[in-house]
Amino acid sequence: MSLSWWNGRTVPAGEVHISPDDSGFLFGDGLFETLRVDDGRARDVEAHLDRLLAGLRRVEIELPEDRRALEAAVAEVAAAAPRPVARLRITVTRGARLVTTASYEPPEENLYRQGVFVRLLPAYRIDSGGPLAGLKSLCYQGNRLALRQAESRGDWEALLLNEHGRLVEGSRCNLAVVLADRVFTPPASDGCLPGTVRRRLLETGAIEERPLSPGDLAAAGEVLLMNSLIGVLPVSRIDGQEIPVGPTAERLRRAWAARLPPPA
Amino acid sequence: MSLSWWNGRTVPAGEVHISPDDSGFLFGDGLFETLRVDDGRARDVEAHLDRLLAGLRRVEIELPEDRRALEAAVAEVAAAAPRPVARLRITVTRGARLVTTASYEPPEENLYRQGVFVRLLPAYRIDSGGPLAGLKSLCYQGNRLALRQAESRGDWEALLLNEHGRLVEGSRCNLAVVLADRVFTPPASDGCLPGTVRRRLLETGAIEERPLSPGDLAAAGEVLLMNSLIGVLPVSRIDGQEIPVGPTAERLRRAWAARLPPPA
Repeated sequence: MSLSWWNGRTVPAGEVHISPDDSGFLFGDGLFETLRVDDGRARDVEAHLDRLLAGLRRVEIELPEDRRALEAAVAEVAAAAPRPVARLRITVTRGARLVTTASYEPPEENLYRQGVFVRLLPAYRIDSGGPLAGLKSLCYQGNRLALRQAESRGDWEALLLNEHGRLVEGSRCNLAVVLADRVFTPPASDGCLPGTVRRRLLETGAIEERPLSPGDLAAAGEVLLMNSLIGVLPVSRIDGQEIPVGPTAERLRRAWAARLPPPA
Repeated sequence: MSLSWWNGRTVPAGEVHISPDDSGFLFGDGLFETLRVDDGRARDVEAHLDRLLAGLRRVEIELPEDRRALEAAVAEVAAAAPRPVARLRITVTRGARLVTTASYEPPEENLYRQGVFVRLLPAYRIDSGGPLAGLKSLCYQGNRLALRQAESRGDWEALLLNEHGRLVEGSRCNLAVVLADRVFTPPASDGCLPGTVRRRLLETGAIEERPLSPGDLAAAGEVLLMNSLIGVLPVSRIDGQEIPVGPTAERLRRAWAARLPPPA
């Protein structure tokens, strides 16, 4: 039976109900994290809790539990998660704390060889100087609408720009671009979410921060998407234009796996 | 006993619980409306439903109920709302529909004579060309953070700019400025929420749309805030600078009251 952790207690998943007065439901006033769970063990809890706790300080949401208690909650909920792979979500609003899981079907292996289609949606501008920049805020409707629009045209992901017209990220992934044998990802100052796969690959030196423009996509040898659920996935088509799938995604996937802390 | 309307049924208010899988809670993927209820009768249901239904079409959320059913739900929930004044909220997510009420304490009458303090927060930029512009989205965390920041300094409201540096609105109010005996409010194309009080006053000709800059605040004879709960409230201080409270707020309050459709 799946378990959830809810305001300090572990309960059967079906018992969790959110109050209609919760600030997360009323105003999206909260933050979340999405972790991958393989066979009951959550990946890179350290990086996710680093980001969550830093974000909560920024928006001034106080957590009654300390980090160790959150780690224990994640481990307990992960251990009871659907197998073989699950998605674990930590949600903290100005009023409720929640750890839940759901079954997750990872991309098939051939997708890692074939790559996925993406579409640039210039109307969805990220405000790199705004109060929510870099936060995994519950205010995700713009991202969801961008993803719906991309999916309605047969694409797997939408690519988003910031207010200066620079490339920032996908609606649910970080972005990396291979230019002359180096791998670049937009800097945090351009407004991207500081993703956990991105973080680990920056730590190893496998990728580097550099501002990127839409023109860099056309010049790129390879284009890659990264997030905690998929790892690193190559792109094979941008706005209908083919782009080669090279060896970099697979190389980064291995570098990332080697860099991960032992599972919780 | 307070009632709520929940996915097509009227239930005791305490029975409503939101699923942790609801898209409104997960991603702020929904819209809401806030109406004032006086002695069990909701104000200007017509304008609120006009805006809600137009917004739902934009974000492609389909409602199983028709407009007449929503009107009936609002009327039934309003009739059971706390007296003398309540706040009624309609929330529609990609998955749930909800009408709830809570007791509301309106501003005291002397606040309408004295005015309130506001603070311009230039860091909170509204994206006038973005996918959520003009929508009363559940993604309201930026507005809430701005309001917290203003309140922490003793102000009643935060004033927000758009990406071009033009004045747009408050965190929970529309804005109007008296310049040479005319009353101007930022145009919808500058990214403001098309508020219901604003709409009714535009219909009467009592206010007009015109782009406004922060410099217009310094030149203004009077500055006013508008929303469905407060009506029209004068501003008496902007960023610590006094501004006179003139006769316009009271005049507009009366013009608005005269324009309201009969209560539902």
